[in-house]
Amino acid sequence: MSDEGMLIIISGPSGSGKGTIVKKLRKIDDFAFSISMTTREPRFGEEHGVDYFFCDRNEFIKIRDQGGFLEHAQFCGNLYGTPKFYIDEQIKKEKFVVLEIDVNGALQVKEKIDNCILIFVIPPSIDELKKRLVGRNTETPQKIMDRLARAKEEVKLIYGYDYIVVNDDVDTAVKKINTIAKAERLRPARNKFMIKKIIGGD
Amino acid sequence: MSDEGMLIIISGPSGSGKGTIVKKLRKIDDFAFSISMTTREPRFGEEHGVDYFFCDRNEFIKIRDQGGFLEHAQFCGNLYGTPKFYIDEQIKKEKFVVLEIDVNGALQVKEKIDNCILIFVIPPSIDELKKRLVGRNTETPQKIMDRLARAKEEVKLIYGYDYIVVNDDVDTAVKKINTIAKAERLRPARNKFMIKKIIGGD
Repeated sequence: MSDEGMLIIISGPSGSGKGTIVKKLRKIDDFAFSISMTTREPRFGEEHGVDYFFCDRNEFIKIRDQGGFLEHAQFCGNLYGTPKFYIDEQIKKEKFVVLEIDVNGALQVKEKIDNCILIFVIPPSIDELKKRLVGRNTETPQKIMDRLARAKEEVKLIYGYDYIVVNDDVDTAVKKINTIAKAERLRPARNKFMIKKIIGGD
Repeated sequence: MSDEGMLIIISGPSGSGKGTIVKKLRKIDDFAFSISMTTREPRFGEEHGVDYFFCDRNEFIKIRDQGGFLEHAQFCGNLYGTPKFYIDEQIKKEKFVVLEIDVNGALQVKEKIDNCILIFVIPPSIDELKKRLVGRNTETPQKIMDRLARAKEEVKLIYGYDYIVVNDDVDTAVKKINTIAKAERLRPARNKFMIKKIIGGD
């Protein structure tokens, strides 16, 4: 029997570029991705089991009441959750399972899941973060101010994280996350079967 | 001001190949190496400040009594110690300072030095370890048996280490240690100045 993979949680303020990083990580074989479950209607082109697990409200509540979600939330009247079963499946396949989640949610998951890795993605400066939020051209000045204020609050939680990745260049940030995953794979607690095999080799 | 380097302790049973790994790490720029202080006479070609810091017994005892050694021991009537000042110097230069030390010593240093990294180098199997010890052709059969017995005891301490590196191929092992160092550089506690700079950028 082999040793297992691990859950890697990627978090950071809005505008830190964590979404782009996660998209690039998809191209690396060792990584798998958490798929959310939702009660909202599929949008055009969205696939069940790829973009989301779509389900009705009753089903969602049943899974929630059985403790089947790592975390869940309501948004615009729809329920969203991170189902544990899929993450467990991927970890057993020795994958680094990536979960992108907001800063507070990440710290909550860390408390529940032993051995998961928390990575904080941070922009090179608050000024750069402001530039990125303005550059999106989708937010009102008030919303940008709100996001910046929130980012400053979120950054205060950085010491609760295992690693910090400054996102000044997406490819470098992706490489760093790959390095973290590879190093974490070398923890004694993640190599119990191998250690047993080596010692038992006599 | 920038953030500092770190102390990386490489340990493992006799025959694990840790010495060869450390020699290869010397070729990587980011790494520096702890230099021992000793009261023994320099051998031909050995240089002060390169191979060892050579000193007399009085000087050694003075440094020892001032708490200037990370660890020290007597061997064949000579005193050996790991002076802290040199390690501190290199850490301030942002180097990964490598210290090769036996398994028990390593765990003792870990207790004294915050934030140092312990890496256990292990052979791919006890059989392979035996082969390597026999292959050296420098040890009596009794000594080989002693070393194997000791190795088995040492491996039991592996869960007190931060990382494990199986040495089935030296270059792969070196690469893994480099990966560990790079990942550890991304710990929030090792980036306090940078975090302050990013947050203070407003």
